[in-house]
Formats: sequence, structure tokens, C-alpha cells
Amino acid sequence: MSNVHIRPLRLLIQCPDQKGIVYEVTKFIAENGGNIIDSQQHSVDGNFFMRLEIDIASDELAAKFETIAAKFKMDFSFNSHKKNMAIMVSKHDHCLNDILLKHKYGEIDVNIPVIISNHSDAEEIAALYGIDFQHCPIIDKNKVAQEKQVLELLKPLNIDFIVMARYMQILSGAFIDQYPHRIINVHHSFLPSFKGANPYQQAYDKGVKIIGATAHYATEDLDMGPIIAQDVSPVNFKDSAQDYVAKGRDIEELVFSRAIKAHADDKIIVYGNKTIVFN
Amino acid sequence: MSNVHIRPLRLLIQCPDQKGIVYEVTKFIAENGGNIIDSQQHSVDGNFFMRLEIDIASDELAAKFETIAAKFKMDFSFNSHKKNMAIMVSKHDHCLNDILLKHKYGEIDVNIPVIISNHSDAEEIAALYGIDFQHCPIIDKNKVAQEKQVLELLKPLNIDFIVMARYMQILSGAFIDQYPHRIINVHHSFLPSFKGANPYQQAYDKGVKIIGATAHYATEDLDMGPIIAQDVSPVNFKDSAQDYVAKGRDIEELVFSRAIKAHADDKIIVYGNKTIVFN
Amino acid sequence: MSNVHIRPLRLLIQCPDQKGIVYEVTKFIAENGGNIIDSQQHSVDGNFFMRLEIDIASDELAAKFETIAAKFKMDFSFNSHKKNMAIMVSKHDHCLNDILLKHKYGEIDVNIPVIISNHSDAEEIAALYGIDFQHCPIIDKNKVAQEKQVLELLKPLNIDFIVMARYMQILSGAFIDQYPHRIINVHHSFLPSFKGANPYQQAYDKGVKIIGATAHYATEDLDMGPIIAQDVSPVNFKDSAQDYVAKGRDIEELVFSRAIKAHADDKIIVYGNKTIVFN
Amino acid sequence: MSNVHIRPLRLLIQCPDQKGIVYEVTKFIAENGGNIIDSQQHSVDGNFFMRLEIDIASDELAAKFETIAAKFKMDFSFNSHKKNMAIMVSKHDHCLNDILLKHKYGEIDVNIPVIISNHSDAEEIAALYGIDFQHCPIIDKNKVAQEKQVLELLKPLNIDFIVMARYMQILSGAFIDQYPHRIINVHHSFLPSFKGANPYQQAYDKGVKIIGATAHYATEDLDMGPIIAQDVSPVNFKDSAQDYVAKGRDIEELVFSRAIKAHADDKIIVYGNKTIVFN
Repeated sequence: MSNVHIRPLRLLIQCPDQKGIVYEVTKFIAENGGNIIDSQQHSVDGNFFMRLEIDIASDELAAKFETIAAKFKMDFSFNSHKKNMAIMVSKHDHCLNDILLKHKYGEIDVNIPVIISNHSDAEEIAALYGIDFQHCPIIDKNKVAQEKQVLELLKPLNIDFIVMARYMQILSGAFIDQYPHRIINVHHSFLPSFKGANPYQQAYDKGVKIIGATAHYATEDLDMGPIIAQDVSPVNFKDSAQDYVAKGRDIEELVFSRAIKAHADDKIIVYGNKTIVFN
Repeated sequence: MSNVHIRPLRLLIQCPDQKGIVYEVTKFIAENGGNIIDSQQHSVDGNFFMRLEIDIASDELAAKFETIAAKFKMDFSFNSHKKNMAIMVSKHDHCLNDILLKHKYGEIDVNIPVIISNHSDAEEIAALYGIDFQHCPIIDKNKVAQEKQVLELLKPLNIDFIVMARYMQILSGAFIDQYPHRIINVHHSFLPSFKGANPYQQAYDKGVKIIGATAHYATEDLDMGPIIAQDVSPVNFKDSAQDYVAKGRDIEELVFSRAIKAHADDKIIVYGNKTIVFN
Repeated sequence: MSNVHIRPLRLLIQCPDQKGIVYEVTKFIAENGGNIIDSQQHSVDGNFFMRLEIDIASDELAAKFETIAAKFKMDFSFNSHKKNMAIMVSKHDHCLNDILLKHKYGEIDVNIPVIISNHSDAEEIAALYGIDFQHCPIIDKNKVAQEKQVLELLKPLNIDFIVMARYMQILSGAFIDQYPHRIINVHHSFLPSFKGANPYQQAYDKGVKIIGATAHYATEDLDMGPIIAQDVSPVNFKDSAQDYVAKGRDIEELVFSRAIKAHADDKIIVYGNKTIVFN
Repeated sequence: MSNVHIRPLRLLIQCPDQKGIVYEVTKFIAENGGNIIDSQQHSVDGNFFMRLEIDIASDELAAKFETIAAKFKMDFSFNSHKKNMAIMVSKHDHCLNDILLKHKYGEIDVNIPVIISNHSDAEEIAALYGIDFQHCPIIDKNKVAQEKQVLELLKPLNIDFIVMARYMQILSGAFIDQYPHRIINVHHSFLPSFKGANPYQQAYDKGVKIIGATAHYATEDLDMGPIIAQDVSPVNFKDSAQDYVAKGRDIEELVFSRAIKAHADDKIIVYGNKTIVFN
């Protein structure tokens, strides 16, 4: 992986809050020839979270870091390669389009080895951007078989994370367990309001004055995973439920791409059912 | 009522959608010497809603309007006087302060004959703005007695509507029935999320990335009445639940004053559990 | 024009404010068998503005309306057909993509007979959406010749309005005069701040905390035409000028599509150098 | 100053970007018994900026820091005491009210020894909050004499910074020089648009669709000082210039209090004519 040394090394740390962590970590980095380009930290409820960007010529840091990690009981990860992101999509292609365009413009720093869909609609747009498209239909309502097929497709591609660009199927727990906190979904409501089906109609019926969208990590508990990004749009009495859907598409694109960028840039730490999203 | 002829007459109409309503209403107004200054209408789900501002020298319009109203099965109201608004407040005085200031600046077009509180904290601020303050404590947890006292206070004041500027008591159904769709409450969350107590803590625990506030008409069903105004503010991982409360105060002020202005200016029509809020 | 009777007739009126306009207009419509579906009006500085949506089986209304229009000295327009919209674009294709997608979803109610570009980059995306693409390069810096070519291309297509989806050339006054208040441009700043070239860099250098984008009618005075829609996005110290550009693309899409929808739906009245954009 | 050891020490650093800064600074803090509670940094255009919150029992750190500061050519400041903030105000009292309320709620962590005004209007509100009020009228248009009087009032109060809560006088360069980058002004427009007088009318005349407010450090160049905070509000064709003023008041309060909190919490570094505002 030739890009290891070009891009900065990113170190994410989570551990019980203790005195001296920052010093010991920065000392370790200095002693190993690294230069800290960016550093953010946060302490809350006795927990300590840290993200570092390090300019360093060697990639042997991770192994050496075990000692310090053990001392502070750290969960940590070193990240230096460009991630491989798989896209899953059904028929609604606005989030897909938005991601592919942002990827083309260099805004989303990932490789996209494959787009997978239970429908064939996205084939042309995938071709336009030169990305492999795989049609994995659900045959005879056999979702288990289809998920198995998808997983086998993904395996040789070294997929780091999956994004559900309006993939209208509920993934099984077994599938999600293969990519824990590495599947990003976008739900077309301001969660925790309006979980499940038809959230815009729910919002319309309730008479809210603002609608929203939420990007979150998929968990087995539908629409309940850790929230990564949310945004909203005002609606008024002239808007029909159909107008909510149209306005919603814009918000879905915004929160979805923000969440993907944050994940791609190693800016997210999950703790409990919440996320720290560094700036 | 000397102010009848100074301010425009406002006519609010709600009826089944039918052909010819706009023409018959505008014809009626023209034939009675009125000039339409502003007109807004909306049709949805077979219902017709209309708001008119009419410049007219006489106030006999309402009586004459019965014929046309009967023909179209209209619910309607004519409004020409400055409304009398009672404020109820507990200890949190930020919404109270904001309303009194906006009232002083001429932004909220009402008379404020009284501020009522179950605590005495707001007495000084009431005095500063020259408004009568009535302390109605809840003694021995006897809320029934206190509500009765409040209602008796309000009766001779010809109160048109009541605003709960963070009044931390749940009003009984019997109280609310005296002012149907004429009591405005502000709830410190983006309803329907986080009903009930401690919504900011609920939001914090859930890990949402945006918090909100909601102004709505009080109904017997707690925090479930027709929504009038909502707004939001982003939060991030650096914000504590206490920071949510602080940010929330600003949003509460914004939605509360917007809802009050809309009600004071006869811009709201309630239908079902929803509102039309004209521009 | 077979679609005349399917879609509602839209009537836009601008005239000096006078008594009785609303009545006479609604009377005229009723007497000619029309039913008013939606009506909005506004008076400001002695001017009266009105927009009506009328359900009517005949399209002879316009001719008959002359009498009433003359009486009130009205500028007016009747609109009943789906407009023909030409798109001009250079290399940045995000606004183009967004419009084509929204058009596909039925959000933008126009025909798109042609996409014209001074570069060939957009040819594939045009093909994906099945829209005719015309490459009109500027040869030997001869912009006059190129504009002439474009105008000749547009003429037989009965183009109602043109949208500049990041068309990076300044149109001549002669060109603009062919489509007065019918060319929509998107400028990547919160006008009137940061006119001209490189607005994001200007914003970055100035240290603003919010960036914006503006959709406006093109006039001979660069970036000074009547503003139709604006929106903004917060930026912070971590954002580079390049990040401004990326965030800006999202805002450009939002304001551009809003302006196009408003124009397509006959919701805009221009007066002086300002616009009324009905809801 | 008994509060030195209760509140964390805040260290702000600005210097040319070099290798090893973070390590040397954190090492220095650790060796002197400090614990880093929060750390943020930023590098841009060859400059390095850092903010640290340090839990430490001694306040001798500043003197010892000189060596490291000299090595890296640092501008730095240690801040541990609650700042003394003077408020200047004219007749518009909405920003004043908002600050005093937020101060009462504990949101703004400062002492307020004095409120100074060229008018007497704010005397009652100052009394309500128990803050000394000084009336310093401008007599015979002699602004020099009045500014001298104000400066003499401020001197014995050890004022750390001044906030102009809609103080409608332009301060002289001589006055501003006494408090460089320590006077916060709020301008009622989205700067750099609409500098100078009557910005809401300017915005109305230009036909913008969004209005804004800006909090910035006062400099001799009117409305051109480093921007600290900005926010906006949409306006529409129904809003008069007077409505802009009313909507503007809410935005002014928001940006003004945000800027004050950031300054009070030592979260701002000024460089050139721009600010870094840490989170």
C-alpha cells in the first residue's frame, strides 16, 4: 500500500480518563519521530477520547504503542490507508449520485470498489463513474441467500465500511455483525422521531414544522444505532407529504455525505450508543 | 372599542373545499365597502382555509357574514381588537423576559393585563415593565384550588389567550377547556421527540446532533397539542447536557415569540391536531 | 398545446395599489367559469402584486382580461404550459447533476430540450438523462460568435428560460436582452458580498464565519441582478478555502434548484431590482 | 484571587509552525505537575495555534514558560482568573438584557463591574440585576471628553474587555488602542455586506433573502475588525424593513453572546484580521 506514508497517520484513542495521557502519548510520538499535525481530545463521564494526526515516515508505530495502550487500558486504532467503501442502494438514487459526484470532486477520500443493489436501476450511473456494479436481487423473498451473496462479493474486496445509500432492505443482525459500526445508514427523519416506514408521512400527519434526516451506524435495533449526523429543513402548510419527500432528499444527501466523510477521515469514535464526531 | 377602525379586520375561514368561495367572499367584502389588504388561502385534503385582512370602516360585517358562512358551512372568526394576553410563568424567566422586551419594542401586538406565577421570582421583572403581577402559589399540593384561583383572576380581565412562558405545572383538562386552542406552551424539545420531563437530558443520552424547541397549543394530552412553531440548534460532543439547556433557552425564546406573534395576529387556523400558520 | 387544460392557469399581476383589485379580478375569474385554487397577494410601497392559480376549462381568459388590466394599469401574464428550459454549463457539473436528478424525480416541472456547454465534459451526463447536448466552444476567444451560435440553437426550441448551471462565462448584454429576467445564474457567494471571481477565496481571506450562495436573474451588471434565493453554511477555522468550495457546492445546488422551481412554477415577480417569490 | 486554582488554567499559543511544539508544551506541563484537560490546535499557512486547558495547583507556570516560548517564538497568554467585563450601551437594550440574563443563568463566566451608557435608559435594568450604572452623556458633541470620562471610569475597575451592546457611537482609535482586540461590537448585518448606518434598510433595498448579524472586535476601521461570530435569518417578501429590524434583534443577541462567551472562555486567537474561535 504505497499511500501509507503519504497520508498522515490517524490515531483514535478511547480509555478511562486519567492523568498524564496526553503527555505520554505525545512523548511516545515524539520519541518515534512523529510530528503531531492535529490533535483533538474530549473527556466526559470519566471517559477520555483522543484523535491525533501524525506526520511520520514509518508505520511501525502501532506495534510499539501496545505498551502505552495497556498501561491506560486504551481501545485504539491506527489508520493510514485510504479506506475501501462499498455502496448498497435500491431504487432511490439521489444519495448515490451525490456521493459519486463528491467522490469525483475529491471530497470523499475513499476507494469505491463496488456498488451493490437489489435492483438494476443504478447500473448506468455506476458505469458513468466507472465503478463495478453488482446486481444482487432478492429472489423468492430469500433475504438470507441474498445477504450471503453480498457478503461473498464483499469479502475479497477488503471492504472497510459499507454505506447504505437508501438501501430499502433491513439488514439482518448476522450481516451487521460482520461490519460492526462500519455500516452507515441514512434514515429520512429526525431520529428518534418517526422510526420505521414512511417517516415523511408520519411527520406530515403529526404537523411538525421542521423535517430532518439522520445518518447513523446500522445496528440490529432498527433506526436506533449511534447517530453520526443530522440536519433539518423547515416545512410549511403549503408543503404536501410529497414536498416533504423532495425537501428530505436534499437533507438526506447532506447528512449522509457528512457522515461518510467523517468515517472516511477517522473522525468518529463510538461509545455506548453515541458518537464523538471530531471536527 | 375605539381600535376597531384603526387596525384592519382579520377574517379567518375554515370550510369544506368548494367552487366559488373566494369569489363570494371577496364579493361580500366589496359590497360592504371593504378593501382587501391581504389574502392567503390554502386547500388540502378537501378542506379550504383562508385568511383575509380587510380595511373597512364599519364593524357590522360579522353579522352580515352569517348567510355566506351558512351556505359554505364555514367556521369563521372576525378579529379586530388588540388581544388580551395573560402570561403564566414559574422560575425560569428567559421566555418571560424575551416576550416583555419584544412587547416593549412593539413586536407583539397585545395587551398584557397580568403575569401569574406559582412563584414570586418574576415580581421584579413584571414591575420593571409596569405589568400587574399575581402570585398564585400551589399550597399543600392543591393544584385544583390554585387553578380555580387563577381562573377567577383571569375572568374579569377578558383574557383572549394565555401563554405559558415556561410554566412548569401541567394544567388540568378542566382549565384548558376554558381556553381551547388559546393556551400556548413551549416545550424544550423537538416534539414529538422527548416528551415529558427533562427533554435535554433525554436528547443528550440519545446522542442527537441537533436539539430543538416547540411551541404548541396546550391540550389535555401532555406535549401532544397542535404544533405552532419549531426551531433547532446544532450541538456537538463538547456540549454537556447543561450546555443543551443553555442553547435550548435561545431556541425556546425564538419559537415561543413566533407562536405568540402568529396567534396575536390571527394567523393560525387549527384543524384536527395540526395548524395552518399563515405567513 | 395539449397540456393547457391539465395544469392550472397561473396569473401574475403587478400594478399600482388601488381599491377593489382583488374583487374585480376574482369576479372576472368567476364570471368566466374559473375556480381559484390558490391566491397570494402583497402590497408594498404603493405597488400591488398578485399570483393566482385558476382551474379553468378554457384558455381564452387572457384576451378578455385586457379590459380589467387596462383599468388598473396592470402588467400581467397568463401561464399554462410547461416551460422549456435550456441549461448552460461549463466544467463544474454539480448543479447540472442536481437539476437533472430533481427533474427526473418530477420536482422541476419543465421540459429540457437542450444542454449547451463551452466544454464537452457534460456530454455523458446529458446522454444518461437522454437530453440533447450541444457543444459550443469559444474559438479564438470569439465570444460574440459563440453567443450567436447559442442564440441560433435556442431559437427553434421555443426556450422560455435559461439556467446557468455554473456557466463560467459572462454573458453579453446583447445576449441577456434576448431573455430579460429569464436567465437564472448561481453565484457562489452571499451577494452582495464577494462579487466577481473567486468568491470563496475572498470569503476565506475576510474571515467570515458563514458562507453562502445566491441564485439571481442575470443582468448586464455582473452579479447585481434581482436575487431569487440565498442560503448559507457555517464554516470554521478548520476549513480551508478548498473546504469552502466543497461546502459551497451543496449550497449552490440548493439555491439554484429553488430558484428554478420558483420560476418554473410562475412564483416570481420582478420589480425594480428585487423579486417577490411567492410561497 | 481565590479563584485562580479553582478554574482551569488556559494557555493560548500562536507561533510559526514547527516540529515538536505539541510534545514540548505537553512535556513542560507534565513536568510542572499539570494535567491537560482539553487541547485544541490548528495549523494554517505556516502558523500554529493552540489552546490548552490545564488542571494545575500552582500559578507559577507563566514565568517558567518563557524559555519554551522564546525557543518557538511564541505569542502566548495564560489565563486563570474570571474576567472583568464592562458593558457599553445606548438606547437599544435587547443585547444588554440578553447578556444580563445569560450572566444570571451562569452562561457567561465574567464579572460585570459596570454598565456605561451615553443615555440613562438602561439604569433600571442595571438596578434589577444589581450592577453599577454610569451615565456618561456626550455633552456639546464633545466625544473626546466623554471618552476620557469613560476611560477614567474603567481604569480602577481592572477591566479585561468591553462589550458594545448596541452602543451607537463610533469609538475613536485612541480609545480602542487602550483595549486592543478586547472590545467586542455587534453589527446588525452580515459583514462585509452593509457596513455603516442603517444596514437593515440597505439589505431591504438590495432585496436579499437572508439577513444577518456579526460580532467582531472593534478596530479603528469601522465595521472591519476581526469577525468572531455570525448568524442569519431568512426574510421574505412579506417582511418590511421594520420586520428586518425585529428579526435582526434576535440574531444580534445570538452572535453577541456567542462572541462574549468565546472571549470570556479564552477561546479566541486573533491573527491578521481574522480569528480562530476554538470549539
